[in-house]
Parts: sequence; structure tokens; C-alpha cells
Amino acid sequence: MTAPTMQDALARLTEFWGGRGCLTVQPMNTEVGAGTLNPATALRVLGPEPWNVAYVEPSVRPDDARYGLNPNRVQMHTQFQVILKPEPGNAQEVYLESLAALGIDTRAHDVRFVEDNWASPALGAWGLGWEVWLDGLEITQFTYFQQSGGVTLDPPAVEITYGMERILMALQGVTHFKDIAYAPGISYGEVFGQNEYEMSRYYLDDADIATHRELFDRYGDEAARLVEADLPIPAHVNVLKMSHAFNVLDARGAVSTSDRAAAFARMRTLANGVATGWIAKRAATAPTPAEPVAAAVPEAVAVPEGAGPRTAVLEIGTEEMPPAEARTALAQVEQRLRAVLGAARLEHGPVAVHATPRRITARIEAVAARESDREVTVRGPKVAAAFDADGNPTKAALGFARANGVDAADLVTVEAGGASHVACTRTETGRDALDVLAAAVAEIVTGLRSGKNMRWRDPKLAFTRPIRWLFAMWGDLVVPVAVSSLAAADGTRVHRSDAEPVVRVPDADAYLPTLAAAGIVLDEAERRAAILTQASAAAETAGGLIDFDAEAALADQVAFLIEQPTAVLGSFDPDYLELPEAILTGVMRKHQRYFPVHDREGRLMPHFVAVANGPIDTDTVREGNEAVLRARFEDAAFFYRADLKTPIADMRQRLERLSFAEGLGSIADRADRVRALAADVSERLALDADERAVLDQAARLVKFDLGSQMVTEMTSLAGTMARVYAIEAGHDEAVAQALFEAELPRFAGDLLPASPSGAVLAFADRLDFFVGLGGTVGLPTGSKDPFALRRAAIALLTIHRGRTGFKDLSLAAALREAAARQPVPVGDGRLDEMAAFLRDRLTQQLADEGRRPDFIEAVAPFADRPALAAERLAELEALADDERFRALAAAIGRVRRILPPDAAATDETDLLTTDTELALIDQACALPDTAPERTGLADWSAAAAGLPAAANAFFDDVLVNDPDPNTRAQRLALLTAIAQRAERQLDWSALRL
Amino acid sequence: MTAPTMQDALARLTEFWGGRGCLTVQPMNTEVGAGTLNPATALRVLGPEPWNVAYVEPSVRPDDARYGLNPNRVQMHTQFQVILKPEPGNAQEVYLESLAALGIDTRAHDVRFVEDNWASPALGAWGLGWEVWLDGLEITQFTYFQQSGGVTLDPPAVEITYGMERILMALQGVTHFKDIAYAPGISYGEVFGQNEYEMSRYYLDDADIATHRELFDRYGDEAARLVEADLPIPAHVNVLKMSHAFNVLDARGAVSTSDRAAAFARMRTLANGVATGWIAKRAATAPTPAEPVAAAVPEAVAVPEGAGPRTAVLEIGTEEMPPAEARTALAQVEQRLRAVLGAARLEHGPVAVHATPRRITARIEAVAARESDREVTVRGPKVAAAFDADGNPTKAALGFARANGVDAADLVTVEAGGASHVACTRTETGRDALDVLAAAVAEIVTGLRSGKNMRWRDPKLAFTRPIRWLFAMWGDLVVPVAVSSLAAADGTRVHRSDAEPVVRVPDADAYLPTLAAAGIVLDEAERRAAILTQASAAAETAGGLIDFDAEAALADQVAFLIEQPTAVLGSFDPDYLELPEAILTGVMRKHQRYFPVHDREGRLMPHFVAVANGPIDTDTVREGNEAVLRARFEDAAFFYRADLKTPIADMRQRLERLSFAEGLGSIADRADRVRALAADVSERLALDADERAVLDQAARLVKFDLGSQMVTEMTSLAGTMARVYAIEAGHDEAVAQALFEAELPRFAGDLLPASPSGAVLAFADRLDFFVGLGGTVGLPTGSKDPFALRRAAIALLTIHRGRTGFKDLSLAAALREAAARQPVPVGDGRLDEMAAFLRDRLTQQLADEGRRPDFIEAVAPFADRPALAAERLAELEALADDERFRALAAAIGRVRRILPPDAAATDETDLLTTDTELALIDQACALPDTAPERTGLADWSAAAAGLPAAANAFFDDVLVNDPDPNTRAQRLALLTAIAQRAERQLDWSALRL
Repeated sequence: MTAPTMQDALARLTEFWGGRGCLTVQPMNTEVGAGTLNPATALRVLGPEPWNVAYVEPSVRPDDARYGLNPNRVQMHTQFQVILKPEPGNAQEVYLESLAALGIDTRAHDVRFVEDNWASPALGAWGLGWEVWLDGLEITQFTYFQQSGGVTLDPPAVEITYGMERILMALQGVTHFKDIAYAPGISYGEVFGQNEYEMSRYYLDDADIATHRELFDRYGDEAARLVEADLPIPAHVNVLKMSHAFNVLDARGAVSTSDRAAAFARMRTLANGVATGWIAKRAATAPTPAEPVAAAVPEAVAVPEGAGPRTAVLEIGTEEMPPAEARTALAQVEQRLRAVLGAARLEHGPVAVHATPRRITARIEAVAARESDREVTVRGPKVAAAFDADGNPTKAALGFARANGVDAADLVTVEAGGASHVACTRTETGRDALDVLAAAVAEIVTGLRSGKNMRWRDPKLAFTRPIRWLFAMWGDLVVPVAVSSLAAADGTRVHRSDAEPVVRVPDADAYLPTLAAAGIVLDEAERRAAILTQASAAAETAGGLIDFDAEAALADQVAFLIEQPTAVLGSFDPDYLELPEAILTGVMRKHQRYFPVHDREGRLMPHFVAVANGPIDTDTVREGNEAVLRARFEDAAFFYRADLKTPIADMRQRLERLSFAEGLGSIADRADRVRALAADVSERLALDADERAVLDQAARLVKFDLGSQMVTEMTSLAGTMARVYAIEAGHDEAVAQALFEAELPRFAGDLLPASPSGAVLAFADRLDFFVGLGGTVGLPTGSKDPFALRRAAIALLTIHRGRTGFKDLSLAAALREAAARQPVPVGDGRLDEMAAFLRDRLTQQLADEGRRPDFIEAVAPFADRPALAAERLAELEALADDERFRALAAAIGRVRRILPPDAAATDETDLLTTDTELALIDQACALPDTAPERTGLADWSAAAAGLPAAANAFFDDVLVNDPDPNTRAQRLALLTAIAQRAERQLDWSALRL
Repeated sequence: MTAPTMQDALARLTEFWGGRGCLTVQPMNTEVGAGTLNPATALRVLGPEPWNVAYVEPSVRPDDARYGLNPNRVQMHTQFQVILKPEPGNAQEVYLESLAALGIDTRAHDVRFVEDNWASPALGAWGLGWEVWLDGLEITQFTYFQQSGGVTLDPPAVEITYGMERILMALQGVTHFKDIAYAPGISYGEVFGQNEYEMSRYYLDDADIATHRELFDRYGDEAARLVEADLPIPAHVNVLKMSHAFNVLDARGAVSTSDRAAAFARMRTLANGVATGWIAKRAATAPTPAEPVAAAVPEAVAVPEGAGPRTAVLEIGTEEMPPAEARTALAQVEQRLRAVLGAARLEHGPVAVHATPRRITARIEAVAARESDREVTVRGPKVAAAFDADGNPTKAALGFARANGVDAADLVTVEAGGASHVACTRTETGRDALDVLAAAVAEIVTGLRSGKNMRWRDPKLAFTRPIRWLFAMWGDLVVPVAVSSLAAADGTRVHRSDAEPVVRVPDADAYLPTLAAAGIVLDEAERRAAILTQASAAAETAGGLIDFDAEAALADQVAFLIEQPTAVLGSFDPDYLELPEAILTGVMRKHQRYFPVHDREGRLMPHFVAVANGPIDTDTVREGNEAVLRARFEDAAFFYRADLKTPIADMRQRLERLSFAEGLGSIADRADRVRALAADVSERLALDADERAVLDQAARLVKFDLGSQMVTEMTSLAGTMARVYAIEAGHDEAVAQALFEAELPRFAGDLLPASPSGAVLAFADRLDFFVGLGGTVGLPTGSKDPFALRRAAIALLTIHRGRTGFKDLSLAAALREAAARQPVPVGDGRLDEMAAFLRDRLTQQLADEGRRPDFIEAVAPFADRPALAAERLAELEALADDERFRALAAAIGRVRRILPPDAAATDETDLLTTDTELALIDQACALPDTAPERTGLADWSAAAAGLPAAANAFFDDVLVNDPDPNTRAQRLALLTAIAQRAERQLDWSALRL
């Protein structure tokens, strides 16, 4: 089949889904960002009525406008949308047939379901599902739709959204959307090229901002009135118009962070009004579909008399689980299975649990045919009540004996709770293996949960993805169990592309060979190893190698994306090596899950290894993946080259057009503040002239790359691109590095700034963010932290802690300075709250690191200077086991404990004349009275080495509370002086040594 | 083939047109009222590039919202739109194939192209074309698109718009749109029912008016900026959004007449900016298609030597001409042909020219093979210059002789312009018949024009519809001529449904038999007669008859809608006879071109006669037409029944929601003014108590039916419905009749109010309209009369003239009263202009009626009271030939002529003592000095019968200008008195008897 044209492809899909009972409707006649927003989805997925529909939806995303220049990005792209409600149970399989209808040979290609969840916070909608990959190309979003307008879907629906431009580019082998054959003899560019350019101009440059703000409000008011008037459809239409106005504002750079939050909240509330209104109106007339029927429990099967131990296999078959969830599920199944087996009296051999994306399998060797029997003692009435005065059993005793099937004469006596009871002994017959396994299956499957669970067409179960089959056998017998709509059986499933995708397995021992025969590697460790081995082998054919250490995380992930690794070496145009390596490897690893290939010198090679699933046509898959990577690189190169042509000053200037947050101006304003704060901060640090020069230069440019196209596209490259572009622009390496470091740390566990100027910038950046938003929006409460202020706070602390040079830098002072730089007033009360918030975070951070609570408390006085607190904490930890230090701490404790709250230090020691007293005075004088940042705790402790002995002698020999008040005052003053010097170093009272 | 579902039908059309090279695009993603507005039409029809496209367009017309209750009317209907540019020359034929693709047997059905031109004044777009009728049902709009955005299309495009709901209802035989099978097992109602209800609620009741006014303005401002910014596509999108906002306002009743005009002007200007911008941007890159090639002139054919006279036939073949244009074309062809033949010297027999919708045919019997030769005298130089002194020919004479191929000796002398010239005689050989006919064809076809002309894919021709073929033969020879892209040939076309629609005709004599064999009746008179005969015969089978007199206009029209009449008797449910007959016959005649059937007592019967074209399946066509009429009647019945349930007071109250015009309030305000003005007017009329009571009651209700659904739908029923509803509501017949008459006359030549109260109301109504709009918008100038004030003025005069009771009613006074009732000030200057305007109109009206100009001038003094002017004019006309009256007029003229401008009448006659003088005094005293409305002109003239003799004697005997100033003064005073009495009756000075 030759590749279809665009219009052909749409017609084929329409016909295909029409043939599967889907209604065809027309695209929405107002701008929507996705087919989901068409009422044929957004409203019709609600409520119990069945609804199957398929339609084309030209989807408008002003933010994706690129003047038609970008080969892969358009402001209006064509979705083909399918809704199946209730989900039919085999939507993945039908979907694969639809690909065949488009002319895609799904046996030759690598088609995969890769975790991708979908959520629209603006519309209170979400679902779990996948991106469908065709040789690495995302061609479809496949979602089990769970909630729309904040209302849970019951039943849930399957939503399939084909990205037509991408599919057509792949099928036709073209590299620019304009070159897609739209219809015979006419290209996509001829049909839509001018539209792309002009609408891009409108959305990016020319749309009037005030007008669109007004439109947003007006439509919002209309929608609210219509929700009240119980007219959900026109209300929805007005919400769509709001949403479009918002998207235009966003593309125009006119939406601040807080604008966005407010707009989303407003739309979400309206969407909920629409959804509940719609459901209420439909409820009156709409037919309720029959509840999905629970599966019949299979008829009980008797374990043959005298049967010996047999292998048992339990397989929970699912649709593709996300890698992390598959791991968790594996652990859950293993833990529960072991618990169940532990509680049972069923002899068995080794238990092994493994998982692939589509199954979690427990295999238990040599499971006995039945549990052993056991004697059970049953307690009856108290002896006093069991026998009458004559020693004859009472009615109570007789009844107890009868109930337990024993003679009253056989009752024995047991002690329980301090009283004597009659009791009897009974033999409990062991259950047979099938019963035990059935109970285990029921418990395990019913209890299976993931981090984020979904519903499908099953009345009871909930899991990360639908569970589709249960294979459960003991020897050649099916375990007779049904869990909700699923009955255990003797069938498993292999690759969907297999000639026979559902396979009967004659007995449990045949299970592993069956999977193996289909090529499926059940053991995740084996798969991971095979992936790395195959990838290395593939890389080697090009003379390259895979860095196993660097790729460990990727290998972990890939191992749960496939069931049968098939490594494919692909190449890309070496010209792309001109791009910064971070871009290339980022795209390969993160977007494509490809292994980058390096040469022996560690230089990136123009190759990659993709790991496909199962038997495929290698050439087809290679070509496909290469084309995808080319597009991705082309995309990146497009931005990169455009950026290189743009002076840094222009990028910096573009920041003026990017709103930061309400009241806080633009990103340019923010960068200006960061620069000023960096100067404020650096004044307190000991930087040499070179460092100051670097800081000064870097501060002028800080955040400029947010104005680059590359970072606009891949925000994770902020800092990385700044470094690249700064160097390209001829700046010093040190300046470029500082600009990179200014964005560190980007995530938990990320690098920290290594240079002083980088650290100062990074600190100033987070400080401005924290104080600005904390001062306007407020600090996070509970789970509400829309602007991720916690993360900013943690970064602030981490940067501070990471540099001893920051020891002198007071957070409180820095907060005050940052507050003074904000364009809005930030009150002292709020600053106090912020300081407290940072203190709490530091405590939490240290606790999370496993630091001893008493030590954390002991360094709490230095929380305003986290670098100092951290240093002192480390010293404390180093000294904690030192006997001399412990003695010192004990002595200081003793000194502190005897002091009344009002004791004051004085210089007068004329009444202290005994040797003991004089010795203690000497020791006191020897204690360094320095700031902790000047003296290490070890040094200070060493200087105090004589204190314990002197103090102990003092306490032994001298009555501190001398009857003479003057003497007493001088003695207390001596001790106070000691305590005060000690307390500058540590809160000794917290120590529990 | 079973009837397709809606989605099936759309897929079939998409496939069909895709197979004919049309691109498929998606519907517009903002609300449009028609597929025309999609840029795939509105913009792509502009400029020279070829463009063929087909797409579905859900079209939103808020005004058509009916809450989903009306069986045939929906606020969102589904269009299937096709654009073919350049027009392929056979679009009608291809279109018929598309019907076959939908499963319509075009041979069994009556498919017709019925004149319907399309124009969107708001968008500066228009085209000429047809509604396509399927058994009387309008299923498609077929247009040759001529202008978009005010820019002429070059080349023009064909636009085909299928109305899918109608087509599907017909194909599936359902009577409510909700019952259309949308897809297998799911009805249109299930898919769109709730949407219809809720969006109707929104558009009709709930949309916020202020918001939509704001939207209209905002989008307008955006569009204007974008036109300036040279971004026609987003500009167009914003114009569409304006247009939708306007449509919503309109549906909410918030658009006054002047609002509408202003909004249209604004949108039209923008649309023009968009169109010119688009063309300019495309011009740079777009390929220019080759100009359509002119047809080659066929090789000259020699008329055989010695050939005798033969029949000649010229047929101009067209696509379906509008009936009126076909008649005009027939006349044009006949006139030109006769002119050409008259100028030629070609002997020929009788000429007959006929026309059908698709052809204009001239047949000339016995056309000689060639023109006769003739002698021509050629004039040369003056004799004086031709011969020298010796009488020998000069060089000039010799040259002249040589040039004319004669001997100088053969030169003769002729007289011309008072001078003698030499001359020679030459024989001019006649052209042969083919040459003469070729020239005739070229001249006739090139010059053919209609009232409104269009262009198609021909570089030169322009006509009411495309000319597609030329048949031109003399005997068995084709006339060798090509006109622009058309070459004459020997083929004609018969019915499109014929097995062989294009037929070769061996010779001119075979032409008529060929058409006859195909069933085509060429002679329009014959067709008309056949229509009436067949219709009568059909009516008779149901025991009814056709009222030939009443249906004359319809028969004239139908005769030009078909080529072969096939009358089909249809019936409708007698229950519909409950509807007012005006509704039923109006629908039948005007909308459906059916002949109503009456019984012998003149009562409407539940039958009708449709006249189909050509051979059809009678049952199929009957059923189809019956279904259409059922839908039409159901539509009407729906409104009628809804109205009957609505109290008149409610309808009257609804007028408050209908805007009239800016500054002039609502229609309710206007009705209030009409009521008040009717009271003002009636005070000046002699009405008896009964009449006053009727007027009073009717005035309270006047215009109430504008608030009814029926009149909202069919505005032509205003008044008619008022009468019906008033009677249904229990009002007196007289009141109901007055309400009906209040709307008269509705068009030129319509009935006039017959009752006094009807006339008063009608007069007050027009008075308010004229003064209100004349006072705010201004009086018409030149061709600008957007509010049809001329028509109102004419009605005002016609009503006045129609009632002698109005003789006392001064227009000037009425204008003043009406001005006082307006909510805005109307200045005296403006009132004077209005009075002058009305005077001019009256003069024009009388002149148009063929009244003598001198008579019109003679009654001009009474123009302020048209009823009086008209009466006096009629009297004057009656007396004009009366000798005595002429003598009287002459005498009065003589009296007037002798009077100096300053002559004054006095009562003193003491110096006038002669018999002659005394006789004249007697006559003067006998002249009635009454107002003209009190004395008829005949009576007055009779009373003045003695005046001529007396006056003549006076002038003969008496010297008026006596030397004695006192005598002279008294004589002049006597004449002045006579003149003054005469002048109260007439402006005698104007008479030219």
C-alpha cells in the first residue's frame, strides 16, 4: 500500500472507526486546543450512556505558532479523535488494526505504548494512558479518561487521539510538514502554509492583549450565567472561547504565573458547573447501561487424591504499566504472596516474582497438594460456669462440647486471662492447594494498587492500568477463582503482533517455556542485562560503546518498556554534532529513550541505539527511529541556529516581554533584581577581584537564555544554553560557567554551583523568587504550593550549605535585602514568617538526611546561616564519639544546669580564692570566646580540654550557692561566663550524648 | 440502494468530489453562517489560482433557532460545500452525478435548476445561480460566484452548497429533523437534539446583549488592525467573529434597521480589505492559469453552387435562464436577427424565435443561398477637379477610375452636397448565406445581455447564465462561426436525464423534430398552454379545477422553468385546510410554483398540481412534492398553532423586544405612535361613531402580528395574520379587517384599505415611518434609499388618494403632527423638505399614470391634499373635451392674462355701469366662491356657464385700461374677483387645452 495522502488518511480512519460502530461528527466550530474539548468528548464522556464517536479536530495551539518555519510545529494541527464509552476491553488491539488500515504493518514496526498521562488542570480533566510510539515517533495519545470537568467518569472512556501531521510525515517520509501530500498533487504547505504564517503572526505578535483580556472576562461572565441558567452546552462553548482567549494571551507572553493560576481556577470552576449541569440534565432521560457483569467463579476443581507437589504460576496480565509502577507492583505481589503463603500451611519451594510491562508473574515451585492438618484448641466457658456444684457439666459446657463435636467428657482445662476455661482440641483439615491459591489470587489482585490508580470497565478493580487477564495454574489445573470481572484461566498473551497473540498453556510448568518461545524475557534483570549487552554489541558495530554507568537509569527504564529487547543501531547526520552535546543526549535519552554512543575517547558519535520490542523488521524500525531523531534534532537545530543568530542582548531584551508574576513585573525585572541582589550578597563574601569581575559580568546577563528559542522549547536546558550561547558570543569560560551555575540545582540531587559567582547568582535567584512570591502570593500551606516555593527554599538552603564561604551570610539579612528590592512592599511580619519557614525547612532537610535530632537541635542557633550550621553539625558528628568531647559536653551541661535563669556574668572574681576556683577561672579564660565561624568546634573543644576536670573539681569542692550572696554571685558569674562562651559554639543543652 | 445515513451521505459526497479532484478540508473553527465564509471559499475563490475543494460546514444561524421544536428549522445545519475554480464548464452535469452517488435516481426524479441569486451585502459577495429542486425540495444552492469581499472573481468559481438535513429527510422519508438516521442506530435528535435546544435558548433568550455588542466592536477593531497589518487571514477570522456576534444580536432582537446598515457597512469595508490584501499577497507567488482559449473559427465551407433556399436554425444553448431573462433574451435575439436580416440582401421566409429555460432558438425558413448582387455608385472627385481645362481627366480622376477598376471614360457625374462629382458604378457581389448567418450569430451572441449579467470561464461573453453551446446550421451545413470560446456546431442538447443528452442534428430541418422527439416543447406559448391543459386535466381527476385567471402569472413563470411540462397531481392532508387559505396558496404558488386546486364553489381542495420537467417517474415525483409541501405546511402550521395559543396581548408585548430604528425605539413604540397618529388624523375626518369605535379598537392592536411567529417567518403575511388572529381571538370582523388593511398596500398594485379605519391606520403607519426615518436618517437621495422611504411615501399618497374622505386632510399638517409624536426632534426645515418630497412624488406618480402634464400642473395647488388633487384631476379629465369648459377656460385665461400683478379685488362697482359691465358683474357674482372640496369642478363650471360670453363681450366692448384711474381700478377689480374665484378651483394658467 502506498502512503496515503492526508485527506486519504483521514477518510480511512473515519471509515475504519465508522465500521467499529463509531459515529462521525464534525470538528468544533470554535477554536479548541484539542479534540477532547469538543462537546462530543468533553460532555459526552460524562454520565452512563454509551457513546462511540470518531472525528477530525483541527486543534489550535497559539503557543506552537512558528510562522510555518519549524518543520514539525504548527499552530493548527490535525487530530483524529476517537471516544469509546464504555471502554470495550480491547481498545489497544482495535487501535492497532486502525494502524493497519492506514497502511502500517504493525508486525514490521516497533509499536509501543509508553506511559503518558494526560491532565488539563484548567478543565478539571485527567486520564491515564500512553503515547503510542511508532518506531520512536509519538503518533497517538491513548488515554483511559477518568475525570472531566472535575467529575469522575462512570464508566470511564477510552480516548484515542491520532496526531495526523506526524503520522503522515512518517508514512510519506517527508521532513517538513509543508511537504506532506495533502491530496493528490497538492501539498500541505499549499493548503495551509499561508495560514500558518499569518495566524502565527497574529498569535505571537499582533493579537491585541487588552482585547483578549476583555474577551476572556466577557466569555467567562457568559459561561457563569449560563451555568446558573442550567444551559451547560452554551456554557461549555463560552468556556472554550475563554480558553482560546487565554491561550492567545499566553502566546503573546501576557500571562503571569499568578494570572495563570487564577485563570485556571476560574475555568475549572466553570467546567465543573458545566459537567454537573450536563449530567443532571441527561440523567432524566438517558438510559443507564447494564453494569459490567462480574465473572462467574469457575467451578471448583478437586485436587486429585494423592497428588504430589506441583509448580504454581500466577500471572496478572495488564495493559502496559509505567516502568515505576511495574516495579512497585512486582514488589507488592511478592510481599503479599509471601504473606499469604506464610500464613498458610502449604509446603512449597522457592518463590520468584517477575514483571514486564504487561504482566506480573509469580512462580512457586513444588507447591504441595494441600495444607497440613493441625490441632486447634478451642476455649469454652469458664470452669466455674462449666460445671455445677456436683462437678457435672452445665448446659453451657454441654452446648460448647456439642458445637465442637466432642464429648463433654473430653473437655480439658486451659488458663486464659487469669481464669480457667474449659476447652477442647479439634483437628483443622488443611485446605487444598487450589483453595489456598484461589484465596491468594483474590487477595493479591483485589489489593493491587499503584501510585495513581485508574478505573476501567470493571466494577471493583483499580490499578495503574487495566488488568486484562489472570493466568493461574497449579500443575495442569486452573486455579478456580474470579476477581470482579476477571476469571482465572489457562491462557496467557504474548506479543500483540504474534500470529497467535493469546496462547493456551497446558500446565504451570509450560508457562516459562511458552513465554520464552514467544521471545518474552520475563525476568527484568535478564531483560536489563540483555538490553545492555545488545546495545553494546550494536554500538560496537559502529566502533562505539555505551557508557553503562551513565546509562544505568535509562536501562532501568527501558527494561520496563519492552518484553523482548531488540537493539537497533541507528545513525544521524554528523552535522548535528555541531549542536551542544547536552541537547543531543538530552533528546536521545529523555525524549527517545535511546542510548547515546560514544567513541573510546568519550566523544559523542553520530549513532544511537534504540531498543525495540519483540520481533520487528530492523531496517524499518531503524529508518523510522532515525527519521524521528532527525526531526527532533532538526527541531532543536532550528532553535539553536536561530538563537546563534540572535545577539545575547536581544535575548535579554526579550525577557521584558515575558511576564513573571502579578505585581512582580517581567522576567527582565526579575533578572535585574537578581543582579542587584547578587551585588548585595557578594558584599558580605570574601571574593577576590577576578571573582568579582566574573560575577559582575555574569550578573548582567543572568537568565538571558530564557529569551532563547531553545529554552522556550526545552525549559530544562535553561543554564545549559546560557553557557553555550555565552561562549559562542565570546564571553569568558568563567562567566559562561557562572551563568550555567546560576540555574543550579534544577532538581533534587542535581549539581550545585561550583564557582563563587555561580553560587552567588543561584542564591540571589532563589532569594528573589522566594521573597517575591512569598511576599505576594504567600508561603505554602499544607499541600498547596502552586509556585513550588518549597523547592525554591530548599535550593536556597542547599546552595548556602554547599559553600563554606557563605558562613557569614545571614538569611534574615538577605531576606530583608531581597524584600527591599521587590516592586511591592513585603512586611516585617511576612519576613519573619519566611525566616521561620526556612528554619523549619533546614531542620526537615537535615532530618531527611538522617542527621541525629539532638545534633540538629544543637546547631539550630546557626539556622540563619545554613553553611555554618552544616559545618558545625559535621564537626559535632565527628566529635560525638570522642570521650574528651563527651566529658566536655557533660561538664558544660553540669555548668548550665546549676545556673539560675537570672545569673549574670561579671568580671569580679576577688572573692574566688581557692585553688579549685582559681583553676576554673583559668580554664574559663582559656575558652575561646570567638564566633563559631572563626573557630572550629574541634579546636574550641581542644582549647576546653581542661574544663571538665576543673569543673568537676569545682563542683566537688565548692558550694556554689554559698550563704554569702556576694561570693555566690561571683561563683555563679564564673559559671555563667563559661556557659556563655560555650553557648556561642553550640546549643549544648540539646545534646543527648 | 437504501437511503444513506447522514454520516454516510457526507462520506459519499466527500468521496465523490474527492474523486473529481477536490481537496477535502475541515469545517471552519469559528462559527460561520455558511460554508461560503470558510476561507477555503471566501479567500480561495479570489485570484487566478485553480482551486477545487469540498468540505462539510456546520452552519450556525442563530435566527433559525427554534428550540429544536420546528421539524425543519435548526440553528445549526449541515452544509456540504464544493468550490470549482475555474468552473469546469459541466458543473451541472457533475453535480447530477453526485446526486446519483447519494442514491438519487435523477431520471425518476424531477431535478430542476430554479433561479436563485445569492448575495451577502455584509460581505460584499454575490453570485448568480439556482436553487436545485428535487421534486420541489430545495436541496442545493448552485451559484456562479462573481464577487467576494467586493472584488470581482477572475475567473469566477462554481459554488455548490448541499443542504444535508433536507436531503436526508427526503431520502429517508422522515418528517422531523430529529428522526434523521444520523448513523446506524442513532438518530440526529440523539446527537444534536439537546444542542439545538440549549443553543436556541442561548441565541434567542440568554445571550447577553451588551456583551455581544462589545464583541462585535472588539473583533471589528482587531480586524481593522489586521487589515492594516497586511494579515488578511486573521483579519478574516475576526470578521467572521464580528459576523457571528451580529447574528446573535439579531436573533436577540437587538438590531435596529440603522444598526444593521451600519454593521453591514463596517463588515463590508473590512471584507474588502481582506480580499484585496489576500489577492496582493498571493499575486507574488501564485501561478496564473492559462486564459481560456478562444474557439477556433471553423473552416469556411462553400455554399454549393446553384444551391436553392434552405432552412436556417440558430440555437443559443444556456444553463437554466431565469424566466424573466429568458423572455428578454428571446426578444433581444428576435430584434437583432430581424435587424441583421433587414440589412442583408438575403431572401428568406418567415422568422420564428422561441425560448425555453435552456435555449433561445431562431428558425428562418427558406434562406437563399446567397445575397443578391447589387450595383453601387461610388462618388469620386468634384467634376471641377476631375477634368482639366481641356476636358481631359486629371490625375485625380484617373486614379479614382483605376481604383474602382473602370475606365476613366466610363465615369459619370452625380450631384452631392450641392456639387457635381464624377462617379462610377460597380457591382457588389452578395455574400453567401453562411457568411451572412455567421455574422448574424457573432453579433447576436456577443451582444446578448440580461438585466444582471455574470461571467463564466469565457474570456469575453457575459449573460444571465453561461452560454454552453451554439447550434447554427443552414440546411445541412454548419454555419462557420466562433464566438469567443464557443464554436457553432451541429449538436444540440436535450434533457440531461436523457440516455443521449447531446444529439447531432443532420440538418436544420431536422432540428424541430429532434427536439420534439426528446419531448421538448420549444414554443413558449405552446408550453404554457400545455401546462394549463395538463394542470386542468390533473385537477379534474380530483374533481377540481384550476383558476386560469388567478394563475396566469404563475403559468407564465412555470412555462420558463421547464422544457417539457409533465403535470403531477399531488394531495395534502385535508387537516391543513384549517390553516388560512392565504397561507396555503401563498406557500403553494410562491414557494413551490404549484397550482392550487379549487372545487367548483371556489373552495380550496387538498390538492395541488406540480409541473415537472420531462420524463419522470410520476409516483416518485408526486411523493416527493407531497413531502415537501407537507414540510412547508407543517412549518407554517407549527407557527400558526403556536400563535393561536398565544394571546394577542402577548404578541403585542413582544413588539417591545423588536427594535425599529436608532432613536425611534421599538416596534411597540412605533405601534403606539401609529395609534396616536390615527387618533390625530381621525379628528379631521368625518367618521361615524361605529367607525370610531372600530378604529379605536384596531388602533390598540395595530401591528401586533409582527410579534407572531408566522409573520416573523413570512413577513409578507403581516396584516393577513393579524386579521386571522384577531378573528380567532373574538374581535369584530370590522376590527380584524382594519388590522389587515393597516398594512395595505404591501406592494405596487396591491389592494388599498377599503374601510375608513383601515385607511386611517395605514395612513398613520406610513406617516410615522416616513417622518421618523426621514427625520433621523434623512430623505432618499439618488439611488440611495436604504429604508425604502420612497415606497412609504408612495403608499402614503396612494392611501390618501384612494379615499375621498381624506380630501380635507392636509399632508403638511399630518407631517407636523407625526413629527411631534417622534421621540427625536424633527425640525421645520426637514418637514418642509418632506412636504416637497411628497409633492414631487405625487407629480411623478400622476405622470407615471399617463396623466397630462398640464392637468397635473393645474391640480398642483391641491398637492397637499392628494385625494382632492386626484378628484379634481379626474374632473378635469372628464371636462377637458367639453366645448363649454374649454370656452370657460379660455375666458378665465383671458381674464388672468390682462391682470397686472398688483391688481386687487374691491367691492366697489359704482363706476361700472354699461350693460356689458353689469352682465359681467352678474356672472362674477354667480361664480361659487367655495372651497374646491365642497363643489365639484363640473358644478362650478356649470355655474360659470355664462362667463365666457359675458367676458368676451366685456373685452370686446370695454377698454379695461380706461384712462380714468378709478374706472380702470374697478374694472380690474372685477376681473380680479373673477380670477380669484376661478383660481380656488384650479390653476387655469397651466392648462393647454
